[in-house]
Amino acid sequence: MERKIQIGLLGVGTVGSGVLETVLNNIDTVEIKKIAEKDLSKVKQYPELSQSLFTDNVQELINDPDIKIFVELIGGINPAFDFIKQAIQNKKHIVTANKELIAKRGKELFQLAEENNVVILYEAAVAGGIPIIMPLKQSLSANKITRIAGILNGTTNYILTKMEQEGASFEEVLKEAQNKGYAEADPTADVKGYDAGYKTAILASLAFNKNIDINSVYKEGIDRISPVDIGYANEFGYKIKLIGLVQNDEDESIDVRVHPMLVPKDYSISRIDGVLNAILIEGHPVKRVMFSGPGAGKFPTASSVVGDILCLANEINVADYPLPMMRFGKNRKDAKIKDIKETINKYYIRVTALNTPGVIGDLGTICGKNSINLHGIVQKEILEDGSARIILLTELAKEKDVQQAVKDMAENPKIKEVNNLIRVME
Amino acid sequence: MERKIQIGLLGVGTVGSGVLETVLNNIDTVEIKKIAEKDLSKVKQYPELSQSLFTDNVQELINDPDIKIFVELIGGINPAFDFIKQAIQNKKHIVTANKELIAKRGKELFQLAEENNVVILYEAAVAGGIPIIMPLKQSLSANKITRIAGILNGTTNYILTKMEQEGASFEEVLKEAQNKGYAEADPTADVKGYDAGYKTAILASLAFNKNIDINSVYKEGIDRISPVDIGYANEFGYKIKLIGLVQNDEDESIDVRVHPMLVPKDYSISRIDGVLNAILIEGHPVKRVMFSGPGAGKFPTASSVVGDILCLANEINVADYPLPMMRFGKNRKDAKIKDIKETINKYYIRVTALNTPGVIGDLGTICGKNSINLHGIVQKEILEDGSARIILLTELAKEKDVQQAVKDMAENPKIKEVNNLIRVME
Repeated sequence: MERKIQIGLLGVGTVGSGVLETVLNNIDTVEIKKIAEKDLSKVKQYPELSQSLFTDNVQELINDPDIKIFVELIGGINPAFDFIKQAIQNKKHIVTANKELIAKRGKELFQLAEENNVVILYEAAVAGGIPIIMPLKQSLSANKITRIAGILNGTTNYILTKMEQEGASFEEVLKEAQNKGYAEADPTADVKGYDAGYKTAILASLAFNKNIDINSVYKEGIDRISPVDIGYANEFGYKIKLIGLVQNDEDESIDVRVHPMLVPKDYSISRIDGVLNAILIEGHPVKRVMFSGPGAGKFPTASSVVGDILCLANEINVADYPLPMMRFGKNRKDAKIKDIKETINKYYIRVTALNTPGVIGDLGTICGKNSINLHGIVQKEILEDGSARIILLTELAKEKDVQQAVKDMAENPKIKEVNNLIRVME
Repeated sequence: MERKIQIGLLGVGTVGSGVLETVLNNIDTVEIKKIAEKDLSKVKQYPELSQSLFTDNVQELINDPDIKIFVELIGGINPAFDFIKQAIQNKKHIVTANKELIAKRGKELFQLAEENNVVILYEAAVAGGIPIIMPLKQSLSANKITRIAGILNGTTNYILTKMEQEGASFEEVLKEAQNKGYAEADPTADVKGYDAGYKTAILASLAFNKNIDINSVYKEGIDRISPVDIGYANEFGYKIKLIGLVQNDEDESIDVRVHPMLVPKDYSISRIDGVLNAILIEGHPVKRVMFSGPGAGKFPTASSVVGDILCLANEINVADYPLPMMRFGKNRKDAKIKDIKETINKYYIRVTALNTPGVIGDLGTICGKNSINLHGIVQKEILEDGSARIILLTELAKEKDVQQAVKDMAENPKIKEVNNLIRVME
């Protein structure tokens, strides 16, 4: 007879309640020993449960020797980091959905876990219900990864999809999304790309088994994307998506960044709309696989959290000892991350210029001077104030050359404004 | 210092050579001790390798106590079954890409593996390079699966895609695919749905942790699909795909089958074209995730085979002992599989009738008499011989009622032929 592994659950907010309900309804191989929740009024949601199951004192979980798995679902760095650290020191395995914590403090935590012979699993930290952490550690582990491109933030993907469908501005759609509960009252972490940045850094750390310094990851959000850009992208055969990008081009540094991109419409990742997430993985020998599904939400996230709990419980049920494959992260070296200025991309550049002869020639000259080959240049709209809207599409060029060209354009008296610069996915 | 786990490789055909090259080029944690290949002329492909690595006698692998993992890549039932059986009895873990073997003889092999305390991994047996077996065992294991729908055979998906793009007949495209090497000289296993049937049965066994009797799985191929059907499907908003379907509707029996389906164009699985595979998984709490990628081929399949090898090697490197989570399959009960006649579906029915009054009425009467509600009926083409082509789309109806209606139609003197019946995905 197998014994039931006992777990301690920290936090019964959205994800925590999904985990609690899933364990109660679907699972008979683990048992929730104790639930810590600082807002004990949430206990009332569970009149069928013994009230002694709940506590507002996390130490009751951390110090309970029966609890083998400590499940952290409160998010953020403080106090989650300290609680997890104590739980690890008390030889508990960790399951968490906390992408910010893993991205910012994972290095310390993995080291500590290694020293204490326990495991940290975090499938839910990236792309909610989509299995991606375990596949990278296991089934895809024979691959040399060359590129990961992910739509990793549902809020921004919802906003971009709505902007495209309705021709509405970022600000309008953001307000609507906030009203519907799809965007936070303070949307900064989503719209500025920080959230996608955490997840991209985690994917990069798994793909190359190196520590990624989250501060070295370039992050640019979607707040400067306008319906004009979406319209031109569409005309040229692209959709605009916020992409978490990981690339390795055989030199020593890894290219890890988050920014909007023009994605060719015939790439299946371009068709991931609304709040869905997707991760495209390219490498040898697998070539290219894509995973898509719900990137957030009470139940999809619970699917991954409880999946991790079951993986761990199944293992430690047989031997009190963690799974080597899941211990990925030990002896990791720090990655050298490529500066965005050194990356090579194709670009979409939107410019507003005086409607005078020579503007196109000047733009071409500026690009040439900065070693940028143009793929195309389009002027077909005269704006209300008489100025001309010009779109440039470049061939592959170095980011620092393009930044210099943008500076040169801004200083040219015939050019009123460089409105936007968006990288183009190859 | 970790020791290198030694493996024995049986077969260096397409997949075997991909595995060999991947291990040699990408991997430094396992070592190939011996390769068995009955056609020793294949050894010449590897002049850089010591010829003593190769043997045409499988017993040299089976009886080598240094070999911990036996990798079977010859396919088919005989002699693969016997070799694997002997290897298990000699306490070797098994990695295989052999879908036919797992689908037909998995029950015996899992039992034997359990008795010998070893593990059988077979990620490559379903959907080539796409990780799907491990995710079902691990990250998605908290779910009650309600439906799996898979495009699991690249050859038939290529043929259907080409038929759609070129308006060509099944026979023409099959011939072209054979010339290009995308279809076998004897295409039966692919076009009749047997290959997809093995894979669907394996997915069902994992989703419900039950043994699936492959003989009880309904299999229907694509050889009766015509460009006319593809054209009408397109008009009604569908694409035709060969779908491996697994459903569980809360009664005791599981619905497992393979047949062509009209798939709504707004379902992302409808956009999986050419030789690609995809698997859609629906369940609670995850809702819906999709995996897509290359379903076959030397290197993608090698990605999964070597992934399995590394999972095993990492574990047995630390303890000579198999991983509980990977031992999925022990104590499995036999599944009760729903008879196709008892399933409930929507249907597309194409009929050729005399162009006389009363035909539509008769069709409506036949459907009504058999408890079938029509969603739509379309007659807009008169064929060269003066007969009328009529398409019926039904609401949900019981298969046996629809089969009876088709029989009734065939017996009606105004109806010349019931040309096709294709189920419609909801």
